[in-house]
Amino acid sequence: METNSKELKEHLISLKKESGTHSPSIATISEVIPNLQITVDACFLSNPYATDLFMKYFNQDLIQTNKLREVLEFYPPQNHDVSRYISKAIGAKHDNIFVGNGAIEIIQAVVHRFVKKKLCVIIPTFSSYYEFARPDTEVVYYKLNKEENFVLNPEKLVKFVKDNQVDSVVIINPNNPNGGYISSEELNVIIEQLTDLENVIIDESFIHFAYENVELSQITSEELINKYKNLIIVKSLSKDFGVAGLRAGYALMNDKKVSALLSNGYLWNVSGLADYFFKLYSHKTFIDEYNIVRKKYIMNTLMFLSELNTLKGIKVYPSKANFALVELESTTSFDFYIDLLINHGVYVRDCSDKIGLDGEFVRIASRTFEENLKIISAIKDTLKS
Amino acid sequence: METNSKELKEHLISLKKESGTHSPSIATISEVIPNLQITVDACFLSNPYATDLFMKYFNQDLIQTNKLREVLEFYPPQNHDVSRYISKAIGAKHDNIFVGNGAIEIIQAVVHRFVKKKLCVIIPTFSSYYEFARPDTEVVYYKLNKEENFVLNPEKLVKFVKDNQVDSVVIINPNNPNGGYISSEELNVIIEQLTDLENVIIDESFIHFAYENVELSQITSEELINKYKNLIIVKSLSKDFGVAGLRAGYALMNDKKVSALLSNGYLWNVSGLADYFFKLYSHKTFIDEYNIVRKKYIMNTLMFLSELNTLKGIKVYPSKANFALVELESTTSFDFYIDLLINHGVYVRDCSDKIGLDGEFVRIASRTFEENLKIISAIKDTLKS
Repeated sequence: METNSKELKEHLISLKKESGTHSPSIATISEVIPNLQITVDACFLSNPYATDLFMKYFNQDLIQTNKLREVLEFYPPQNHDVSRYISKAIGAKHDNIFVGNGAIEIIQAVVHRFVKKKLCVIIPTFSSYYEFARPDTEVVYYKLNKEENFVLNPEKLVKFVKDNQVDSVVIINPNNPNGGYISSEELNVIIEQLTDLENVIIDESFIHFAYENVELSQITSEELINKYKNLIIVKSLSKDFGVAGLRAGYALMNDKKVSALLSNGYLWNVSGLADYFFKLYSHKTFIDEYNIVRKKYIMNTLMFLSELNTLKGIKVYPSKANFALVELESTTSFDFYIDLLINHGVYVRDCSDKIGLDGEFVRIASRTFEENLKIISAIKDTLKS
Repeated sequence: METNSKELKEHLISLKKESGTHSPSIATISEVIPNLQITVDACFLSNPYATDLFMKYFNQDLIQTNKLREVLEFYPPQNHDVSRYISKAIGAKHDNIFVGNGAIEIIQAVVHRFVKKKLCVIIPTFSSYYEFARPDTEVVYYKLNKEENFVLNPEKLVKFVKDNQVDSVVIINPNNPNGGYISSEELNVIIEQLTDLENVIIDESFIHFAYENVELSQITSEELINKYKNLIIVKSLSKDFGVAGLRAGYALMNDKKVSALLSNGYLWNVSGLADYFFKLYSHKTFIDEYNIVRKKYIMNTLMFLSELNTLKGIKVYPSKANFALVELESTTSFDFYIDLLINHGVYVRDCSDKIGLDGEFVRIASRTFEENLKIISAIKDTLKS
């Protein structure tokens, strides 16, 4: 490795340290290391075709009409006003909807306010679920096994939850970082057996990339909110709609929980642009167009994952999300990540900080068709050397 | 009043009910009552010339360069990364800065996490300071007197705070809704005597509109953060920079408090656009241009307030903010507000829900020079009828 590469490597190590258990964003990397060229951000879990669609509407509705100024200048509507469009979009009751400044704010609110003494988290996972726990909350970890391909066994999970007498459990479906999917049927079985818990948190951040039929129909457990009082369904719109910069998410939960949150907070927590997005979300024509790009991206991802599966020297774990957890057979995840980034400009997620993973793992996102070809070619090259 | 007016009035009453102790935004009003024409939003406390300036930069930096997509698509930097530009802008230490999704998120965080058993709020005030209090926090109210022009007496406040043994106090300077200003000297005296409190919260949301010399130099108590460990200085950038839709604010506080907040939350609480704004905030050329429009707006506001002062039938209380608290001598605040809105399209803040105000009050914001003329003319007309 040349001197320049060494310097870059040191920069990247220090940036990663500052970012805790999350990856530094490419904006942060570009700012600190301007001479590093990132050509594909395969760390970022987002549908780029959906971003194209959003930008089309954004240009039509806000730029060409000169309405953008209003959106930036004035206060956005209050939380309970924004939830009205979402109610229209999904057919859920307005008072079951809590709007968040991204799903991350909802996770924080739920973990701080509703989780009591003991929280069960399935690992590997998205770290904020345990990092946001209050100091007086004990977190217990249900570990998915590599030997079982990180596939969740519903009966074992239910037994673990009951044996440990937790009050709350988090299920990310499909799970991050492995993409493992729990079918609607299995999920129903789990929820049905956990009705005495305070909170059953279902995080559907990646559900738009999962499928159960050849029509690739949208899946959601949103309608279960009327049946189970302890359900909290977290919806991040960043990934599926490709708008992470907007910070837009919502959750469905018991109306008492929504009232408790809104009674002393979360007044104007949605920006003018996120508010514009939620309005779009309730328009049928937008959603119809969105479903076309959603399906296109799923097909794209299917091809990408199947191509990844043919490569020697790595193991790809089963995923129904827009990414794959990849185990490396003869290199460390750190060396692999650095090599891909410095020599090919491809940024993947080094998973060495993820608890519950024994071995060398990276998470690789599916991007556009052309970008996926570049990722595959870069990985092939890196595995050779 | 005609049938049409009656209907509008009923609509407005129901909208106000839903908005609690805040005004419905003009966006919400326009959505629910599309046939009501609002020509001047004098409820909205924001410098419109600063919005012009922001839009100029926004167009140059994001629209013309096609960089807007990046800002909307990707995750923004983490909280502690954003605070680095603010640190550069204001010269405070990076680990004393907490970045918020608008000042309102900071108020929520501080009141939920740092205020203990007893909080002193000076009334009339911005209602979130007491509404966001946890159920186990007692709020005590120090009342400003109409007879004393709502001017704060520092000695009386200090005595009240000590007598009531509160752990936290909120001082909004200039105060909302009356605009009363505490000089830097008086504020120092207050802070110096309250060093044994847990939290002395200084909300500087309107400080850019205040002045102590003919050069209209910017005032702030930001530098006191190094001297007093219990100070929390809240900065809303919505009003001074005219960008409420972005949701951008920050606070200066003890590094231990910043760490406590960031240790289990507030990861990506700033949108891509707010992040862009914070970068601008650290650029000298932008701030130099900003100071020109800030001073222009102050001059504008001075003329507006002096014009208001000449009108008969109202009393204007002393203000160094960008609005005035106005007492009505022979009409109710509700009738006045409705009349101005329906017959003149001028939207002012009916203060009948503000605790600590005995009488009929409205709060009227200063807008552009042309809009201020319309406001004055509409008020004259309304007072006549």
